[in-house]
Amino acid sequence: MSKVKRVYFFGEKGTEGNAGMRNLLGGKGANLAEMCLLGLPVPAGFTITTDTCTEYYSANNNLPDGLIDEMKDALRRAEELMGMKYDDPENPLLLSCRSGARDSMPGMMDTVLNIGLSSNTIPGLIKKTGNSRFVWDSYRRLIMMYADVVMEKAEGIEPPRGIGIRRILDELFDEYKHSRGFKTDTELSSEDLEKISVLFKEEIKEAIGKEFPDDAQEQLIGSIKAVFKSWNGKKAVSYRRIEGIPDEWGTAVNVQAMVFGNMGDSSATGVAFTRNPATGENLFYGEWLINAQGEDVVAGTRTPSPLNNATKNEQNKHLQSMEELMPEIYRELSSIRDRLEQSFLDMQDIEFTIQEGKLYMLQSRAGKRTGTAALNIAMDMLDEKLIDEKTAVLRINPVQLDELLHPICDPEEEVKYNAVCEGLPAGPGAACGKIVFTAEDAVAWARRGEKVILLREETNPEDVEGMRAAEGILTARGGMTSHAALVARGWGKCCVVGAGALTVDSNGKRAKVAGSDKEIREGDIVTLNGTRGLVYDGELPLMDATENPRFQEFMTMADKYRTMGVRTNADTPEDSRTALGFGAEGIGLFRTEHMFYGQGAEKPLFLLRKMILSADIDERQGALDELSIYVKRDIKSTMEAMDGLPVTFRLLDPPLHEFVPVSREKQEEVADALGVSVEDVVKRSEALHESNPMMGHRGVRLGVTYPEISEMQIRAIFEAAAELMAEGKSPMPEIMVPVTCDVSELDITKEITDRIYREVCSGKGVDEIPYLYGTMIEIPRATLLADRMAKTAQFFSFGTNDLTQMTYGFSRDDIGGFLHDYLDKNILAADPFQTIDQDGVGQLITMSVEKGRRTRPELKIGICGEQGGDPSSVEFCFRNGLDYVSCSPFRVPIARLAAAQAAIKGSEK
Amino acid sequence: MSKVKRVYFFGEKGTEGNAGMRNLLGGKGANLAEMCLLGLPVPAGFTITTDTCTEYYSANNNLPDGLIDEMKDALRRAEELMGMKYDDPENPLLLSCRSGARDSMPGMMDTVLNIGLSSNTIPGLIKKTGNSRFVWDSYRRLIMMYADVVMEKAEGIEPPRGIGIRRILDELFDEYKHSRGFKTDTELSSEDLEKISVLFKEEIKEAIGKEFPDDAQEQLIGSIKAVFKSWNGKKAVSYRRIEGIPDEWGTAVNVQAMVFGNMGDSSATGVAFTRNPATGENLFYGEWLINAQGEDVVAGTRTPSPLNNATKNEQNKHLQSMEELMPEIYRELSSIRDRLEQSFLDMQDIEFTIQEGKLYMLQSRAGKRTGTAALNIAMDMLDEKLIDEKTAVLRINPVQLDELLHPICDPEEEVKYNAVCEGLPAGPGAACGKIVFTAEDAVAWARRGEKVILLREETNPEDVEGMRAAEGILTARGGMTSHAALVARGWGKCCVVGAGALTVDSNGKRAKVAGSDKEIREGDIVTLNGTRGLVYDGELPLMDATENPRFQEFMTMADKYRTMGVRTNADTPEDSRTALGFGAEGIGLFRTEHMFYGQGAEKPLFLLRKMILSADIDERQGALDELSIYVKRDIKSTMEAMDGLPVTFRLLDPPLHEFVPVSREKQEEVADALGVSVEDVVKRSEALHESNPMMGHRGVRLGVTYPEISEMQIRAIFEAAAELMAEGKSPMPEIMVPVTCDVSELDITKEITDRIYREVCSGKGVDEIPYLYGTMIEIPRATLLADRMAKTAQFFSFGTNDLTQMTYGFSRDDIGGFLHDYLDKNILAADPFQTIDQDGVGQLITMSVEKGRRTRPELKIGICGEQGGDPSSVEFCFRNGLDYVSCSPFRVPIARLAAAQAAIKGSEK
Repeated sequence: MSKVKRVYFFGEKGTEGNAGMRNLLGGKGANLAEMCLLGLPVPAGFTITTDTCTEYYSANNNLPDGLIDEMKDALRRAEELMGMKYDDPENPLLLSCRSGARDSMPGMMDTVLNIGLSSNTIPGLIKKTGNSRFVWDSYRRLIMMYADVVMEKAEGIEPPRGIGIRRILDELFDEYKHSRGFKTDTELSSEDLEKISVLFKEEIKEAIGKEFPDDAQEQLIGSIKAVFKSWNGKKAVSYRRIEGIPDEWGTAVNVQAMVFGNMGDSSATGVAFTRNPATGENLFYGEWLINAQGEDVVAGTRTPSPLNNATKNEQNKHLQSMEELMPEIYRELSSIRDRLEQSFLDMQDIEFTIQEGKLYMLQSRAGKRTGTAALNIAMDMLDEKLIDEKTAVLRINPVQLDELLHPICDPEEEVKYNAVCEGLPAGPGAACGKIVFTAEDAVAWARRGEKVILLREETNPEDVEGMRAAEGILTARGGMTSHAALVARGWGKCCVVGAGALTVDSNGKRAKVAGSDKEIREGDIVTLNGTRGLVYDGELPLMDATENPRFQEFMTMADKYRTMGVRTNADTPEDSRTALGFGAEGIGLFRTEHMFYGQGAEKPLFLLRKMILSADIDERQGALDELSIYVKRDIKSTMEAMDGLPVTFRLLDPPLHEFVPVSREKQEEVADALGVSVEDVVKRSEALHESNPMMGHRGVRLGVTYPEISEMQIRAIFEAAAELMAEGKSPMPEIMVPVTCDVSELDITKEITDRIYREVCSGKGVDEIPYLYGTMIEIPRATLLADRMAKTAQFFSFGTNDLTQMTYGFSRDDIGGFLHDYLDKNILAADPFQTIDQDGVGQLITMSVEKGRRTRPELKIGICGEQGGDPSSVEFCFRNGLDYVSCSPFRVPIARLAAAQAAIKGSEK
Repeated sequence: MSKVKRVYFFGEKGTEGNAGMRNLLGGKGANLAEMCLLGLPVPAGFTITTDTCTEYYSANNNLPDGLIDEMKDALRRAEELMGMKYDDPENPLLLSCRSGARDSMPGMMDTVLNIGLSSNTIPGLIKKTGNSRFVWDSYRRLIMMYADVVMEKAEGIEPPRGIGIRRILDELFDEYKHSRGFKTDTELSSEDLEKISVLFKEEIKEAIGKEFPDDAQEQLIGSIKAVFKSWNGKKAVSYRRIEGIPDEWGTAVNVQAMVFGNMGDSSATGVAFTRNPATGENLFYGEWLINAQGEDVVAGTRTPSPLNNATKNEQNKHLQSMEELMPEIYRELSSIRDRLEQSFLDMQDIEFTIQEGKLYMLQSRAGKRTGTAALNIAMDMLDEKLIDEKTAVLRINPVQLDELLHPICDPEEEVKYNAVCEGLPAGPGAACGKIVFTAEDAVAWARRGEKVILLREETNPEDVEGMRAAEGILTARGGMTSHAALVARGWGKCCVVGAGALTVDSNGKRAKVAGSDKEIREGDIVTLNGTRGLVYDGELPLMDATENPRFQEFMTMADKYRTMGVRTNADTPEDSRTALGFGAEGIGLFRTEHMFYGQGAEKPLFLLRKMILSADIDERQGALDELSIYVKRDIKSTMEAMDGLPVTFRLLDPPLHEFVPVSREKQEEVADALGVSVEDVVKRSEALHESNPMMGHRGVRLGVTYPEISEMQIRAIFEAAAELMAEGKSPMPEIMVPVTCDVSELDITKEITDRIYREVCSGKGVDEIPYLYGTMIEIPRATLLADRMAKTAQFFSFGTNDLTQMTYGFSRDDIGGFLHDYLDKNILAADPFQTIDQDGVGQLITMSVEKGRRTRPELKIGICGEQGGDPSSVEFCFRNGLDYVSCSPFRVPIARLAAAQAAIKGSEK
């Protein structure tokens, strides 16, 4: 048996990994190795593989045999390169220990820094650096992180005193400063920090019941285990669920020599993007802090300085850029930036540290970006010939298109308003909603249908669910690379960060605006302009983003590679035209019943009610005759708008009782029309009541009982088509029978269709009306018997909403009562009504396609459920050989891009 | 290409078919051939194959090429044997044309007799027979049948004058008799009948617009086509649906030389059973009529005479038996009876005709019989060594057992009542219900939940659906072989026929009882004793049939061959004991929630309500603690009753709102207990409302949201088991989690189970409690992911009720609104809630078994839906390798027998 390699060394020489190994080494580890291979200055270290994480879990939280030996070997090589030795009393090397999953999960897992400081190494390090304050400060940071991450979280103990060790130590720290009259950390002397370390260790012993370990080996092993453990921490699990990352991937662990940005004014730390992540502008864009450690930048506790002069903004123009202060190092970093883009062929998000004048690269990864930035970077890199068309098409996450088509503040209106305060433009578009002050409130309010803006001092990983639920995010602190900004941009969500004028009182649920007597309270409506970083009081008019020529160019390019059709779900000429504008290639779902809702629906709804409440076929036929005028009108005008493109008409689908009048007035109206008493109408209405209407008398079942209802609709479709043909148009109707579970249902409806077809052809004097006859596949039995269904159906259209309902036994109307429990407890990875459950529902779809095409090879197959606009569902449809997807007009571009990407990925296999 | 043989000759010599060819020749054709092979006197003829029927339909109602030539050939051979020639002016042969499906469908398809009478043959036949009255009577019968069967029904025209040609001609016939002052047909002279023939033909021309054909070839072809057509006649289709006969089988056509029982007093016709079809007694049992055609016996228009003296009864003891009147022929027939039983090895139902002293056998088929008769015949034939044990086990249709266990009139009570009238004991057991006078009323009343007795003058095939719907059937006319008697026996339904004292006025919806002033009106309650042929006024106490030792013997024999287990669905010790008496081998479904319904449920229900309406976990836990006492009590007593046998406990299944109090009083009670206002209780109740509760917050979903509910139940199960073990008992609990769609649901419930198990073991001081942990498979997704479910589940139990609901998208609560349309229109062959839909739902079951066992080969699999007691579903379960079926206590014997038969059939393959 060949030995499993679990540890991959990286450094100036002898690097064992590379950028292609991200599944095994995680994104961070693979890229650290790649940077080493590029000859960039990376502190030496090693990566423990993701597979080891899985081994660790299956061995009941034990590190596998042999790992320690492999680690020792790699550590020896790192010590050699760095010229220091771990746990050496004279010349000690300190280590960092960081997570690194395949896909970046920013801030979701834990990190421990300064590992290796102990009574054995502290004196030597003080002697060597001559900087005892730095050493004691590093030590108290190690204690705080280690106690939190390793001793509390990884051990899974209840938070001590209900608040957790981190906060206990924070409070102790503040108390100490307060008792000495200090305002900032810099006022603390070396002696203060040493004393604090002692206090911390006593407190830990007391609160947790264990000693903070003074042993360097124990510190290292504890930290590695804690990183593995953090893969299954609550916030990481929650993030994975939202992002659809499988639990079984696991995280790698990167153990790396520490370098220090906090060793004085010739030291610094920073993060940067190789291009602007908000706009895509081709400018080196970043932030840095002198004499600081990395966490200081990301945490947003100090406002960082700009990297260069070109990217200074209102908030930071008074601060000195690296370009000004350290021009030499800036040039080095700038040239690294170019080499990284040349090598990774994508915009990179990098972390660096300057230790006493020497630059070290700590990380490089593909940078998160807004949709606008994604579009511009992809098109620019295409122009720069860095990437080809297919790669460019793959560079925009389809859901980000949503953001390009996102509402923005109407500019003409916006000028009339004065912003309450300003911040950084961290997430694009505009959002409007009621202010809430906690993530929990955001989730709770959103669940009951409120649109909310989440206002936080700054966000942290615990806020992820609330950020997801909110329309927009507003923070008082933090920069463009703060947690809030990163997460919001990843989702294309409107976000303003670092609105420094705000003083947030989360407990009091209010925020004061500096320089005014304005106060923002819970429930107040505000509008955010995330593209400009502005906050307005009240509700501003929003508008759709206007057409962007670069967007059109991109979509045209995407369409070149797309093979699957994209239709829209539309029931009116207006919706049809909107969808055509977004590139729809026909209508995949016209819902007849939608003419009974909303404006202008009074008369048709009245006639429908009359029909529904008829006691016999004569009454019903009378009402249907009147109703048919309206039905035909809507059908005709929609087909006219979609001239030359297919329009799929679904026959009446919902249970009739949905339309029954409830108000006395409406009941009287129908009673009058039918010439019966109101009591009769009420009685007839009650007779229509069903216990489980979703599985009741609806769809084709209505047509089986009342063939005259199907007949009226089918006649309206054929007549409308014949009339349009007489006007020189090219209607392409498709008749779709819903809720079928057996081919017999299709057969008896087909008999009606054939008869009406002959009647209309002879009545209108036409030889032929081109049309297709098919069915929704939305009942599990129809999928199981798809071979039979296809004997009569010329097309299938998957109704994945109902199919998901029946396959799970979940009522969409009621799932709100328990779906969150299922998501919270990680029972379901995603809401199956948002994205196709490929494991379960997917099996039925795959089976139907296979069986249907076996009977009828030319069977046309589409999907018209909500998931038709969800990218992973679109890809699933492509893989299953569907002819088209159909979705709401606004999701058409998303579906087009997702389909193009699926085709490109498919052809690359 | 080899030529398809479509016509099979039969006769004294050269018979081409045999009894083994029933699929191709139909039951009747195969048995006619077999009788010829046995050397019995059968009029010669030929059978057109069932495949030809299918050809006919697929060729758009055209006879296939070559058929006519084959027919001519066979006809020539029949002519030779019979010494007559079809359409010969001097010595004409007449033909009958009868249907013959694989399985007998008595009276469901059409027959034409006396074919070949025309102006070309009538004079010669009169000359040859010297009996012009017979010839003209035969001719008018041909005209009536042909006009009805061929010219009207087979052509599918609207019934002329809204009543149909048959009734038009009947009325014309009656008018003619009336105008001449005749009371009976026998008063009509030869001249009258000739005149009537002319009148009939004129009337046909007028009403249908076509001439009655005077051409013998046209008559024959028309009749053959009409028989094919009648396969898809409304009543045949309806019968097939009820009996589960596939539409694609088709019917054969038997064309046979006519022999006449109506050629004077040396002629006769009759039907007989080789043993008594009601009791199974080994006596030749039949009825005959002198000078009559077959239809006269079956139609019940004349009361037939008994075949022999041993079987005379109260109704016919005054009539002369064949044994008395024609002893010679009776002996011949009696010896044929013996040869038929020796050859067919089963009780036969035969038809015969005596033409001028010569006996002809027209039919022999396995006779329909009551359950009692089936049991006795099987056990007798086993004793007689005619059949072996396996054959005997196969000889009782499992649904007939129902009848053996059917209620009967309590004999001690029955003696206190006087019967209103008497009839023949045509269907066993007793029935009680409201009188209705039409089949439509029977269907309509039964649909709304009324128990009805269908009272008819005599029944005909149009009444089949009504007979099905009724609890019992009562007719004023007809014998033991009448339509009503045959159909009722086939179904094991209580039936009294030939209650001659009744004069039925169907239009007036009343019946007079001769010799009393008693009148029976619609809605009156009557009780039938179908075993004795008695009709009582009012509701008599019924009781279960007492244990029959022969039945026990039979079941013990069946169990020898059975390999699949049979459990019961039971929730109480009482039900458990009943089921044990019926041979149940454990409980397959214990429904926890049943303790909240019915007697003694007040306190548990109150506590459940308190739990449901709790606002937080503390309130809920309090209520659960109180409730657990009752839950444990029921669990323990049921396991005690089932000592040593497995008991499957399903965790709480229905949505909570089902239990919410609706009356103000009950609401107040709960409000008091919870210390909140009634308004609060109402509000909390409303919050539980769901749009589609069947797919709502129920089953395991409750446990996901409120783990404490599962916990209480699991603890009750383990504690009850541990306590029973301490008492020396052997409890075998199985914990079943309902409504699962993902293995995660099983996993989180398993965590709870493991914890509680440890707690109870240590609390009760036991090392081990034997138990299994498993799940209902009732959600389609669970079937699709059965491989994953089996990772945690040790057993599966198919909940076919819910699985059918979800697979079809049919709500059981609402299906009443349209299921009858689906059955009427032949969209569904059967109610899928009664018998497993093997095509659709069956696929999911097969898939689950295969996937589940792939993960866990020892996976125990059962079924606990309603269909567990349906014989064809039991066979399906056997074929799919299930370990057991579970059904209601009273269906346990049915399931045992069905499982034994499935095993025997399976081993024969």
